[in-house]
Amino acid sequence: MSSSTPSRHFEAAPGLCESPDRETQDYVFNHSMMRIKDPARSMDFYTRVLGMRLIRKLDFPEMKFSLYFLGFVSDEQAARISQDDGERTTWTFSGSGMLELTHNWGTEDDPEFRYHNGNDQPQGYGHIGLAVPDVYRACERLESLGVDFVKRPDDGKMKGIAFIRDPDGYWIEILQPNMLASQGKA
Amino acid sequence: MSSSTPSRHFEAAPGLCESPDRETQDYVFNHSMMRIKDPARSMDFYTRVLGMRLIRKLDFPEMKFSLYFLGFVSDEQAARISQDDGERTTWTFSGSGMLELTHNWGTEDDPEFRYHNGNDQPQGYGHIGLAVPDVYRACERLESLGVDFVKRPDDGKMKGIAFIRDPDGYWIEILQPNMLASQGKA
Repeated sequence: MSSSTPSRHFEAAPGLCESPDRETQDYVFNHSMMRIKDPARSMDFYTRVLGMRLIRKLDFPEMKFSLYFLGFVSDEQAARISQDDGERTTWTFSGSGMLELTHNWGTEDDPEFRYHNGNDQPQGYGHIGLAVPDVYRACERLESLGVDFVKRPDDGKMKGIAFIRDPDGYWIEILQPNMLASQGKA
Repeated sequence: MSSSTPSRHFEAAPGLCESPDRETQDYVFNHSMMRIKDPARSMDFYTRVLGMRLIRKLDFPEMKFSLYFLGFVSDEQAARISQDDGERTTWTFSGSGMLELTHNWGTEDDPEFRYHNGNDQPQGYGHIGLAVPDVYRACERLESLGVDFVKRPDDGKMKGIAFIRDPDGYWIEILQPNMLASQGKA
């Protein structure tokens, strides 16, 4: 038995804290939010093309915006989600893996309106990443549906990773977890 | 028993697909990525202030960048994560709730360098959201640690929701799931 305390982390890096406040131990990474121009266009994309489910929609008429919460939910999970709006709101905010899309009313009627995707200048935000069982099969299907590709799985140096664009131009990575084990080795 | 097919979704909205391709049924929303200027500064913030754990770091010397994957992982979950780099990479890309931070080498040494947070103009990306057991207690602690607030929990119309800034200026929502049940009702 080693006398040293095992590291909390799995990698060494400057700045890491080995003893975080216990207060943080039940924190959950719940969602990522991006703004969308046209909810009908985005709902079609995220539910038909990617297979997500709309769990909760919150409308704020006074402030003229709506929030759409989508997630990948199996039939078994869906059967356990409450039909009661309040309970379902609490559920929506409790777990991981929710996508929040914000629609400021009226942007869909402005032909010139567009959002910034964070990969064009000025850069910052990058993308969301989806794990799929078979990246080549997934990309063949996405291609057949006319989805716009930033990078096909075998383009460039990173084989087996694809990037597509959603209707607003946000990037979405398509990856197959068990194909990436050798990534990032010098 | 109703003769109508129950909706796949929990809300009505234009564009929703009721019968997505079965091909999508095992897709997982794995991560969100944003670029960071200084990894030491960000590791301190995400591990000490927020309590996340660094699961995997992937270095790409040829392209001069590194990827940091962080998540909220309990001690019980951590004990089941492989110490083998390849297996842990596959694990990192398999589930939900990972945060991917990209560091392009050298940006930390440029005093003028900064990333765009998506909430300043031009807008697009918004924030990540963290669920916490007690939003007021969490915010008192964050305040005592000198964290920069965009919105304190009782500022504005949305009570019980706070927004803070990470070291690059990206917004992070701090929310308490069971306080939000009445949100978004007209």
